[in-house]
Amino acid sequence: MSYYKDIEIARYGDGGIEYLNDMVVEEYPLTLFLEGEELVTLLCSPEDLEYLVTGFLLSEGFVKGMEDIERLRVDREKGVAEIELMGGSGLAAKLYGSRTITSGCGRGPVFYNAKDSIDTKALNSDGPIINGSSVIRLMREFDEKSVVFKKTGGVHSCALATEEGIEVYHEDIGRHNALDKVIGHGMEKGLDFAGRIILTSGRISSEMLIKAAKRRVPVIVSRSAPTVLAVKLAQKLNITLVGFVRGRRFNVYSAFDRIK
Amino acid sequence: MSYYKDIEIARYGDGGIEYLNDMVVEEYPLTLFLEGEELVTLLCSPEDLEYLVTGFLLSEGFVKGMEDIERLRVDREKGVAEIELMGGSGLAAKLYGSRTITSGCGRGPVFYNAKDSIDTKALNSDGPIINGSSVIRLMREFDEKSVVFKKTGGVHSCALATEEGIEVYHEDIGRHNALDKVIGHGMEKGLDFAGRIILTSGRISSEMLIKAAKRRVPVIVSRSAPTVLAVKLAQKLNITLVGFVRGRRFNVYSAFDRIK
Repeated sequence: MSYYKDIEIARYGDGGIEYLNDMVVEEYPLTLFLEGEELVTLLCSPEDLEYLVTGFLLSEGFVKGMEDIERLRVDREKGVAEIELMGGSGLAAKLYGSRTITSGCGRGPVFYNAKDSIDTKALNSDGPIINGSSVIRLMREFDEKSVVFKKTGGVHSCALATEEGIEVYHEDIGRHNALDKVIGHGMEKGLDFAGRIILTSGRISSEMLIKAAKRRVPVIVSRSAPTVLAVKLAQKLNITLVGFVRGRRFNVYSAFDRIK
Repeated sequence: MSYYKDIEIARYGDGGIEYLNDMVVEEYPLTLFLEGEELVTLLCSPEDLEYLVTGFLLSEGFVKGMEDIERLRVDREKGVAEIELMGGSGLAAKLYGSRTITSGCGRGPVFYNAKDSIDTKALNSDGPIINGSSVIRLMREFDEKSVVFKKTGGVHSCALATEEGIEVYHEDIGRHNALDKVIGHGMEKGLDFAGRIILTSGRISSEMLIKAAKRRVPVIVSRSAPTVLAVKLAQKLNITLVGFVRGRRFNVYSAFDRIK
């Protein structure tokens, strides 16, 4: 299964109508079953599904690390992921029962907890101090990796990096899915999120900010715009929020000290 | 309450760091209570909230028209919308109990029903035949209306139009919210969706397509890309899907006959 597919289209232009094949991005429904119970259906790009599932489980608080996952089986033909957790169904049922539901973009994380923003503690001022020129260099490296976007114009990309360069990179039709894939992959590699930078092609909403904050990531860099709510949370949590990295310019919205 | 707010930022450029105020788009949590029970929290732009609520209720199948809504009260300070339906809590509870949840990003409609795509009947070939030049003219009119986007780079826009011009136009940080506002406003005006065109700035995922298909809208025009799943559904449902309207060019992905 691939990220995109050739579709026969009609292109209208000054020269009239032309029929041709054009690449269109895939959208794939993956249904997660936790301890045999249907949990959620993610509409995603059909690649790196294991990272999507593990990242989703970590982001939504179902697990604290790889050691909590007893078994994960993804059936690509059926569009199903079966998950069993260490400790079994008791924990899963408890979490499942206490979920709250939201909807953003967005309509972001399904299991968004309104208390997240209050419960999440502010980061201290440790963590990387980054050169402004590094932000620009990282975003250039990030853009060069965006293969699927260049072909189809239809996906978001996300990466985990240090000032030296990008370590984990994923794409998905969903901003949240792309971040979850990066989180899942980072968890598997045992990377320390607290010393790293998240790069994203998408907007920074409160839900994206909270997802990064839960991993204690001190710097988030986006090609696009943040929202006021995301900026306020970033200020409160002492997270450096960088937006609109375009060419040799960018904006910093919070915790200015980490960029020099 | 306004769509955006001035925030103090640090701008990095070739000339060094400059501190200035820049406009950032608002993100506002609105919690819907249906018959006194918490239904969902929408993260949205804080404008036209009544249309967002009524459009959401129609899109998600809680109502069939304005006549099903007995009372709607939006408290902007508290971020709460209280809804009472004609017929009372029995219906609401039934619907609430039978919901299924999904997540796209998308992570679109929370109450997405997997059967929607199967149950939705194909449109017949009635409905508007549109000139290619009208598509270009409508998208130009659409772009000219995008006031908030031009200021903040942070919102999606959506409109309902005939070939003659745009009738209903709304913006929101969420693609789905913008479409729901348009649907809510169109319902209040008593517009016939089946004879109209939807314009959107955002990507066309399967969920956006299904939402339009439920209203029997025959033509959907986007500035951006569709997904393969959306194209397949559009082909099956005989909906004309137009994407990548840029300058004087655009692509048609399905039901070509409606564009001449």
